[in-house]
Formats: sequence, C-alpha cells, structure tokens
Amino acid sequence: MSGSLVVVGTGPGKAELMTPATLAALSRATDLVGYGPYLDRIPARGDQCRHASDNRVELDRARLALSLAAAGRQVAVVSGGDPGVFAMAAAVFEAVETGDPAWRSLDIRVEPGVTAMLAAAAEVGAPLGSDFCAISLSDNLKAWTTVERRLKAAAEADFVIALYNPASKARPHQLGQAFELLRKLKAAETPVLFVRAAGTAEAEVVTTTLGAADPSRADMRTLVIVGASTTRQVGRWIYTPRSERGAPS
Amino acid sequence: MSGSLVVVGTGPGKAELMTPATLAALSRATDLVGYGPYLDRIPARGDQCRHASDNRVELDRARLALSLAAAGRQVAVVSGGDPGVFAMAAAVFEAVETGDPAWRSLDIRVEPGVTAMLAAAAEVGAPLGSDFCAISLSDNLKAWTTVERRLKAAAEADFVIALYNPASKARPHQLGQAFELLRKLKAAETPVLFVRAAGTAEAEVVTTTLGAADPSRADMRTLVIVGASTTRQVGRWIYTPRSERGAPS
Repeated sequence: MSGSLVVVGTGPGKAELMTPATLAALSRATDLVGYGPYLDRIPARGDQCRHASDNRVELDRARLALSLAAAGRQVAVVSGGDPGVFAMAAAVFEAVETGDPAWRSLDIRVEPGVTAMLAAAAEVGAPLGSDFCAISLSDNLKAWTTVERRLKAAAEADFVIALYNPASKARPHQLGQAFELLRKLKAAETPVLFVRAAGTAEAEVVTTTLGAADPSRADMRTLVIVGASTTRQVGRWIYTPRSERGAPS
Repeated sequence: MSGSLVVVGTGPGKAELMTPATLAALSRATDLVGYGPYLDRIPARGDQCRHASDNRVELDRARLALSLAAAGRQVAVVSGGDPGVFAMAAAVFEAVETGDPAWRSLDIRVEPGVTAMLAAAAEVGAPLGSDFCAISLSDNLKAWTTVERRLKAAAEADFVIALYNPASKARPHQLGQAFELLRKLKAAETPVLFVRAAGTAEAEVVTTTLGAADPSRADMRTLVIVGASTTRQVGRWIYTPRSERGAPS
C-alpha cells in the first residue's frame, strides 16, 4: 500500500468539537506527527506510532511526516484548531516545495476543523458577525512592521480583528504595542474580548474595552477579539450586527 | 422546563464535517428553525417541529425562534457553516436587542462550526496560511463603498482575501467590480481560487489568476479566495507560506 499524509486539526480542545471526518482520518493513520499537547487529545492506540515534538520546529515535523509517507506509512499531521489557520498545513506545503521532488506526487489531503476564533466568538455571542480579519501577532516569521501595517489597515477599514498568538514568554510586549496602535485609530469604548481556552471546559471570557484592555491578561491559550465600530453588548452577549448601520430597529 | 435557544452551523455540507456538539444540540431540540436547504441536511424525526423559511428573512426567523424559546421550547436555529460567520447568530442577537426585553434572560448559546472558507482552503491546500480576512460581497446590509474600502485595505496590507456571497441572481456584477478594484492594487499573477460546494461530495475547484479570473464562474455556492503576494502553487496545491519572505529554503 502506498503512503499518504493527511493534515488535521483537533478543533479548539473538546472532543465534541472535532469533526467525524478528522476522527476517521486519525483512525486510518499508522503514524501521528504533532506537537505533544495536541497528540495528547487523541486516545492512545497500541498499533499507532506517535511522533511528538515541541511547538517550535514545524518544518522539521513536516519533513518527518513527508518522509514517513514516502516510505509507505499512513501519516496524520495533527494541529489544534483548523490545520490551515496559523498551523501545520502551510508548513507541510513549504516542506514539499523545498524538499524531495518525489514528495510532490504523494497523496496529501487537508481536513478542515473549528479554528480558535470561531470557538472564541461562540463563547461570547457573535462578535465576528460582520467582515473580519485574522492576524497572528507572532513576529517569528514576519516583521513587526508588517503586523503594524495590517492592524492599521484593519482599523481604518473597520474590520473586526481576531488576534492569534497574542503573547508568549518570548514575546510579552506585542499585544500592548498592538493596543497602543489601535487606540490611535479606534474609539476607546470599542469592545475587546480576551477568550482563554475557548471550546474547552475551562473557557474563560473577559469583556473589556480598547481603552481599558490590559495586555497582560493574554497568554498562549488566549484569543483576543477587537470589535468593529458597530460591535456592541446586549444582555451578557457581544455581537457585531450584519448591517453597517448597526442593529435594525 | 424552561425554554432555550442554541444557534448551530451544519458545516459546509457533508455530515462528517458537522461537529458532535452540534449533532447533540440538534438531538435535544424540540424545534428546528432555519433556511430550508440547511434543515434538509438533518435527518427528519417525528417528534421535532421544523420551521423552514427562505434565505431572505433572517430577522423574522430569529424572532420566531426567540418566541418559541420564550414559550418553553428547546429551539435550534440552523445555519450552514459556522453560525457566527455571515449567518444566523448575529441575526439572533439583533433580534434580542430590538425585541421583547424578556428575551435577554433566555438561555441562548452558540455552537461553532466549520465555516466555508476553511473547507474551501482545505480543498486546495493551505491558501489561508498567513494573515487573512473575510468579506461578504453582499450589499444588502452595507454600502458597496464599504466593501470597496475593505477590499482596498486588504489588498494594500497584503491579506489573503476570502470572499463570501460573491454572486447571486440579484447581484451578478459585484464580483467583477471587486476583481477590477483588486487588479489595480495587486499583481495580475496573484492566485485566485473559485471553490464551489467545498466540503461536499460535489466540490469543484478552479485555480486561476487575478488577471484571468472570470467572475461569471461564481454562484451562490462558491467561495472565492484571492491570494496574498506570497501565495503560490506547489504541485497541485496552493498555499500561502507562514513567512512573509515566502517559502523557506
């Protein structure tokens, strides 16, 4: 049997948010490759090899997975969330582009999943109800000036903004810098949401405003959403009306 | 037993892309409220009432659902994809804001799902591998000048752009106008993807360029993705490298 590679996402955390298609792809795999905590979400099975790694070596992990598939194994590369959003799918295709030409004829597929911003939005209402963008604040792979340019464009065009990777131990200051930039362009009362561990049993939501937002509330498990000018609170929910004129009467 | 309302998304179409959490929420419901074709994705059950409607009356549908929940029913409002992305969740909270004050104390929840752009991206590789935005081209609820402002900002800041609702019978010309605008700001060879019926057995992908893209290829079931400057083809896949410097060597 020839090898194959499927890139999957476990969703935000709870088993009930992993799709049946992803579960089926995992059950067909002989080898699971991924960041340790994501592999830990999948029940162990004696006949499956696990190749766990830390979260800093995405390209190496992708190359290992491709080598295993080229050797005839049925490989699943495991991300959290959706594998195509700030996760492993792009790393796999980068490894294909720059690696063994034989990898281009491998059977490679991607299974979509529930990405963190959708789980975070569902915890609080419907903050992504209008046009929105997703920006990773990590500058491991891009210049900080690029992040600033995108934040500025998103603010000026009044997108709702979902911020992935808002903070890590190595990057404690970037979310504060992002808020500083946004405060010059958006109203102080703009809703800001810190959603930690969205889509898990430990989900925590902090609702605040751009003027008051404390960047130290974010850690690696937090997704931050900055509202558009129309984003508002009703009861205990936050939502963005579909209409740019705000809520209908 | 007091009433409740949960807003769910069926995912892009295939049953295997609906989350178990959504399936469980549907199984607890006494009443399903939604656009007819989405309700048709859910197996019929004799003890569940179905309230099907066309796709133009979202606020009326939301008010019906809230009235049923206030009367003690267990209501599921059914969207396609993820209910928080250009779908029913925002309409429900709009109806709460403008409706019976008693609705604010109802038990209302949102279950996240796999939205169309994630399913479309997975069909072709990893085009959303870098910062991206989602824009609805429908001008039923916003001015076309707002759409243009967002397209311009997204192009200038080099986001990958996912276009929802690119065309309908009532709006045949907007995607062509969007391409015209983007052609002034982005390279002609920028990859453009038309993904029809993503995440279903009938999925079809057309890969072209911004210079050559024919807007008449899109219909109501199509999701259009316009690449960033780094979006590229490798083998039969399209992806956007995580790094703004392009693929690593």
